[in-house]
Amino acid sequence: MQNIPSKQEIERAHERIKKFIHRTPVFTSSSFNEIFGGYLFFKCENLQRVGAFKMRGASNVILSLSENELLKGVATHSSGNHAAAVSLAAKLRNTKAYIVMPHTAPQIKQNAVRGYGAEVILCEPTLQSREETLKKVVEQTGAYFIHPYNDARIVAGQASAAKEVFEEINDLDFIIAPVGGGGLLSGTALSTYFFSPSTKVIGAEPKGADDAFRSIRDNKIYPSINPKTIADGLLTQLGELTFSIIKKYVSEIITVEEDSIVKSMRMIWERMKIIVEPSAAVTLAVLLENKEKFENKKIGLILSGGNVDLDKLPWC
Amino acid sequence: MQNIPSKQEIERAHERIKKFIHRTPVFTSSSFNEIFGGYLFFKCENLQRVGAFKMRGASNVILSLSENELLKGVATHSSGNHAAAVSLAAKLRNTKAYIVMPHTAPQIKQNAVRGYGAEVILCEPTLQSREETLKKVVEQTGAYFIHPYNDARIVAGQASAAKEVFEEINDLDFIIAPVGGGGLLSGTALSTYFFSPSTKVIGAEPKGADDAFRSIRDNKIYPSINPKTIADGLLTQLGELTFSIIKKYVSEIITVEEDSIVKSMRMIWERMKIIVEPSAAVTLAVLLENKEKFENKKIGLILSGGNVDLDKLPWC
Repeated sequence: MQNIPSKQEIERAHERIKKFIHRTPVFTSSSFNEIFGGYLFFKCENLQRVGAFKMRGASNVILSLSENELLKGVATHSSGNHAAAVSLAAKLRNTKAYIVMPHTAPQIKQNAVRGYGAEVILCEPTLQSREETLKKVVEQTGAYFIHPYNDARIVAGQASAAKEVFEEINDLDFIIAPVGGGGLLSGTALSTYFFSPSTKVIGAEPKGADDAFRSIRDNKIYPSINPKTIADGLLTQLGELTFSIIKKYVSEIITVEEDSIVKSMRMIWERMKIIVEPSAAVTLAVLLENKEKFENKKIGLILSGGNVDLDKLPWC
Repeated sequence: MQNIPSKQEIERAHERIKKFIHRTPVFTSSSFNEIFGGYLFFKCENLQRVGAFKMRGASNVILSLSENELLKGVATHSSGNHAAAVSLAAKLRNTKAYIVMPHTAPQIKQNAVRGYGAEVILCEPTLQSREETLKKVVEQTGAYFIHPYNDARIVAGQASAAKEVFEEINDLDFIIAPVGGGGLLSGTALSTYFFSPSTKVIGAEPKGADDAFRSIRDNKIYPSINPKTIADGLLTQLGELTFSIIKKYVSEIITVEEDSIVKSMRMIWERMKIIVEPSAAVTLAVLLENKEKFENKKIGLILSGGNVDLDKLPWC
């Protein structure tokens, strides 16, 4: 198995990607503070390049590769945000990207990827089809495969988001990140361990896709079979690396109902005037369903992304 | 007629309101820069308190009043954002607000006002009904009337938005603000004259509510009769004060089609991941309809507000 990224590796990753990413703002809202009776700090990765934190990890990998390794391009499979991130990072290093996407991925995400000059190869929306299609693409092109989350360089890149939070906000009681494949959550957990060890890390997961919750509870990785959630960024299962980090460094995973996700998403849109995707709103849904736990606490929430199909809003 | 605010009055207003308002961020977008072939700087007053620049002017008036003047509360008429701003500023100074609103005002704006503890008095959606109803309210309560735009203290407050832009961005070729009653546009024009005199000021107005355009062209204030536009913040006509400032300090008023407003609004939502109301998107619509004029230019755009009824989106 791969090594867990060290403090130095996270620091180096952050330094390496700085010119490729935005330092996103941390927003507060007195209206939310009143509603929840706590102090909420929203890390706005929806305002990141490509509209999601995924730009951090993808940049870190692509900037770590030599010119030689990049000669035949890069490839990945992704339901959307990682795809866009790999495509843009590849474009910035003048190499080609091949993206395997399930044909069910929102049109806006497919278009974004093509807009960055990447080649899209559609597959069935199963892990098996993704992996088989990707294998073929890599065999045919010789492209370098960039895993969406189970890679120490990806985790180190995603860790930079929480690192930036801790550079600005002291003494957080909790930091909450959504969990799909676990790249963001494990990066968040490592940055917390290294840069804000008194803060507790919570993973936020939809009940309809609770494989990470069950995996940690039973100490074995469950596959994500027929997940049913509006949070389309959280459909994948943990990898060996992310599982091992989450097991060790995350306090707990809290699952939430679909209704709470939609309600939280709408609250963020209405009160903060920013667009977040359902996967990002899962973090606020944890507060909505557990108000007492967070009363009078200082809480960081990582708003992971803002890529939403505006023609298919859950309340329209 | 009232005096036009001086440089010192704008500086004092800005100092006075600083603790009541947010210093909103100026966002850039490489995607927009590519599309328009220029350098765009978006002043995000949608992220202002109450979701609109109106908090600046309302705070300035209410902070200028003595305790004695505030004893019987304050009153205004407004289609929405000024109402919310007066209500919140009144609450922060522990005085009562009476708000006359047309019964056609979006529910989200009515709710926001009530949420700040103000009393809402509904009227017909005509200037006559607004003014008559307000007169009655003021007679009955003795409340201090705060005009939504035709007041030097309001203009000085709104001027602080452009002042902040010029504190951060040098050498703008243009700055564009929407025009309804003209408070924001005349404040923007004054700040430009005092703090960035080489910048040209453009007013952005919907074709379906082009009374300001015609007023400046013909050198007389036209009433706004049956305006037809989705930009519900731009329905009112100029006042004597705002007319005189705009006439002197604004380069031109450019009118835009409804389609361009909706398209621009959606572009901002999709690419910048922030929520703006149609009235704010009118500024980008000016660029969309006049690409050549703005090529290779540095352009500031004041995104005036973000209060939208999410159940009634123009593309749903």
